[in-house]
Amino acid sequence: MFNRISIIGCGLIGSSILRAINEKKIANEVNVFDKSKEVLSFIKQENLCKNIFNDITKCIQDSDLIIISAPLSSYKEIILSMKSNLKKNAILTDTGSVKKEVNKIIKNLNLKDIVWVSSHPIAGTEESGPKSGFSKLFENRWCIISTEEESKEDEIKKLKKFWESLGSKVKIMSMEEHDYILSLTSHLPHAIAYNLVRTAIGNDSKFRNDIIQYSAGGLRDFTRIASSNPIMWRDIFIDNSENILKVLNKFSDSLEELKKAISSKNPEGLNKIFSSTKEIRKEIVKAGQDTAKPDFGRKKN
Amino acid sequence: MFNRISIIGCGLIGSSILRAINEKKIANEVNVFDKSKEVLSFIKQENLCKNIFNDITKCIQDSDLIIISAPLSSYKEIILSMKSNLKKNAILTDTGSVKKEVNKIIKNLNLKDIVWVSSHPIAGTEESGPKSGFSKLFENRWCIISTEEESKEDEIKKLKKFWESLGSKVKIMSMEEHDYILSLTSHLPHAIAYNLVRTAIGNDSKFRNDIIQYSAGGLRDFTRIASSNPIMWRDIFIDNSENILKVLNKFSDSLEELKKAISSKNPEGLNKIFSSTKEIRKEIVKAGQDTAKPDFGRKKN
Repeated sequence: MFNRISIIGCGLIGSSILRAINEKKIANEVNVFDKSKEVLSFIKQENLCKNIFNDITKCIQDSDLIIISAPLSSYKEIILSMKSNLKKNAILTDTGSVKKEVNKIIKNLNLKDIVWVSSHPIAGTEESGPKSGFSKLFENRWCIISTEEESKEDEIKKLKKFWESLGSKVKIMSMEEHDYILSLTSHLPHAIAYNLVRTAIGNDSKFRNDIIQYSAGGLRDFTRIASSNPIMWRDIFIDNSENILKVLNKFSDSLEELKKAISSKNPEGLNKIFSSTKEIRKEIVKAGQDTAKPDFGRKKN
Repeated sequence: MFNRISIIGCGLIGSSILRAINEKKIANEVNVFDKSKEVLSFIKQENLCKNIFNDITKCIQDSDLIIISAPLSSYKEIILSMKSNLKKNAILTDTGSVKKEVNKIIKNLNLKDIVWVSSHPIAGTEESGPKSGFSKLFENRWCIISTEEESKEDEIKKLKKFWESLGSKVKIMSMEEHDYILSLTSHLPHAIAYNLVRTAIGNDSKFRNDIIQYSAGGLRDFTRIASSNPIMWRDIFIDNSENILKVLNKFSDSLEELKKAISSKNPEGLNKIFSSTKEIRKEIVKAGQDTAKPDFGRKKN
């Protein structure tokens, strides 16, 4: 499908892509770059890749597909380093969770003779780094492809096939739509989880041990989400700030309504609020996006 | 340990207690009451209990231990029905998530010659009803016992042993402390999850399908919590309104800080917020309250 693929950034996502390419023999050659020596030596030690680079310019040489799987805030520097060495007609993609801001950067850099099509595999775990990657991470998961270069049909098809060969289902969507939908399904939940765990821990260490012991009543599920990679999330909140603030304000308005129903001890109002969310759970399970198996009763490994 | 135990209310929790008592042969006899005919016929059909009652007065006759596992709002009616028929020196307990308000009700009813010691098994799933119960629900989970009758040491010990024989670890705590800690570890997370899912679904049906499809980015975990029993949660929010409003206000203050950091695109501020919650996750896993196994990558059953 591709002769040579370069992966820029080899954390949870990049190393999972690498493992899947190896396993499914998707490319003749794979090159990887990471700015961290520890990451590169892990990749080497595990025999995940023969062509390891600490120099981006060399890594991307003659690559047909370049995948940036690094924090959003590093894109500009990465693309500046590779700019003059890109193969003609290469496809440049990424795995970032926000699209519009990155697209502005790339357009301003005025890359020539390459095709920029962004990707967002909606896959991951609460862990980070190359040790936590695995080849099946993308199986049965959605990958959203966004591009403004709609005339480049062949390249878009090629990239779609690439993600499908990793096991993903592909959806093509505008960058605006992507950033709004993800602000609801991913960025808002993460903001709220981080804020909730921060509130529960508080500044008072007196109850810290109790909070940990009795966290199975709900809190522990939020700590899972609130333990994701901080750098990644910092960048997402900066790049998609407009959408995120909009949905956070909606959240706050809705929370004020809930507080009113609680303080007036309004049983009908509370019942209505707590009943309104049951249906969506069933639809999510039906859409194959979660398992129906109850998970609150889970036990220690 | 007990000659006869009566279980009042046979949903997820009550039927799990019943199953565990049967399996571990904890009592010579078990009586069950539920106001729902469907529940009782399920219990009968599954051969979970021989002594099924639709009359509380008869159900509790000669019982040494009475366990109320019904919504908090039904306690008053339940206790009024059983009041004149309780066995002398019987232990009355419950499984409710809030203690102070219920305690007031019970004290006002002026029950004589019985020992009231409340229980709260911190166990459950997002499902409800007797079909979803299972005998191992309480294994390795905490059960908090609260009482003001501290002189009744023998009865407290007996109840402690009962929960331990179901596999639970028991902690004795004051009702005030219980209600505050649970407002942080359970009631706040549920309020936030319900509010989050309600915000994400919104009033706009245009994006509903997209929100379901791409929920694996975080939202799906909240829908799990937000699909718990609405009646149970309505009652918890009414009975523990004071603590819950206090922590919800803390949550809102903290959220305003986060919004400011987002709108000023402050990388250090955001990094600090997102890094502050990683440690607590590790402590929760260490305390055996969750598994360390990454769960975001989970697949369809």
